[in-house]
Amino acid sequence: MVKEKVILGVDPGTSVMGYGVIMVEGSQLKLLQYGVIHLKKYSNHEIKLKKIFERVIGLISDYSPDEVALEAPFYGKNIQSMLKLGRAQGVAMAAALSRDIPIVEYAPKKVKMSVTGNGNASKEQVAYMLSGLLSFNVADKLLDATDALAVAVCHHFQNGRPQGQGKNWKSFIKENPGRVK
Amino acid sequence: MVKEKVILGVDPGTSVMGYGVIMVEGSQLKLLQYGVIHLKKYSNHEIKLKKIFERVIGLISDYSPDEVALEAPFYGKNIQSMLKLGRAQGVAMAAALSRDIPIVEYAPKKVKMSVTGNGNASKEQVAYMLSGLLSFNVADKLLDATDALAVAVCHHFQNGRPQGQGKNWKSFIKENPGRVK
Repeated sequence: MVKEKVILGVDPGTSVMGYGVIMVEGSQLKLLQYGVIHLKKYSNHEIKLKKIFERVIGLISDYSPDEVALEAPFYGKNIQSMLKLGRAQGVAMAAALSRDIPIVEYAPKKVKMSVTGNGNASKEQVAYMLSGLLSFNVADKLLDATDALAVAVCHHFQNGRPQGQGKNWKSFIKENPGRVK
Repeated sequence: MVKEKVILGVDPGTSVMGYGVIMVEGSQLKLLQYGVIHLKKYSNHEIKLKKIFERVIGLISDYSPDEVALEAPFYGKNIQSMLKLGRAQGVAMAAALSRDIPIVEYAPKKVKMSVTGNGNASKEQVAYMLSGLLSFNVADKLLDATDALAVAVCHHFQNGRPQGQGKNWKSFIKENPGRVK
């Protein structure tokens, strides 16, 4: 029997949050759900964060993902915007952590490279590749969800392996000294 | 009967998270709990975030705070550290948001000014003022918890002050339309 695996991809931002859920069966990829939340309309920063948290928790309840893949830029325009972006990421991560679901982060260039072979691909190119891989057409108004879907697909291509197996093993030993002889 | 109110103060950071819980009865302040989590020992960033989330959720379950006050710097050394700080804040906020507890943020200078009258006060000065206000002595090894306790006390002072009353009164009317003619 082929093991199924569900991956939730999240692209948290302060004006738009994109999400995508895919199912992996062997080498087959299936799209389960994708969408965006528009956060610009909420003037209050806490309400934005609450909407992110609630949506991620809702998706986890609906699809029970095995893993969450997060699109996580490590740079930005300025310190203020990075603090806000960090909060949005933290809230999305907390939703996964609260349900004990492993999180793996990918930089945007890595995601684009993994899905299109070009680290500087446009949203349209990413959407085009995804439509082939997942057999569907991304609706124009949902283009903002492509990064989230792409990070889920990228995570699958990585074989569910976080970038540094070595590092994880090292931290496992460090944090569980009694369990390794 | 004097209404009791419980305030949880949190000072989320990436190497130490401080927390403090106070109870307000009329003009009396009572210390319920304070402490720190040392996060440096966890090499994995997600484990740090998980520890923050779990502790805040645990404190909420134990003390049912009415409000969460957050010490939130709006500046930092560099973009990388702000992203990480934002994540730590976001995770602490998500814990409060997940239980529908209102969050109020205060900048560090505001907290110090509110508690000591000096926006540039040292940790020791803040600890000294807190020991008078809350009738206890902060243990040396828990000095990192003083900012969290201070932000809880600062939040209490802000609620009682005339300059904030207008806003509170406005929100009271908004939230209790039937009670004001």
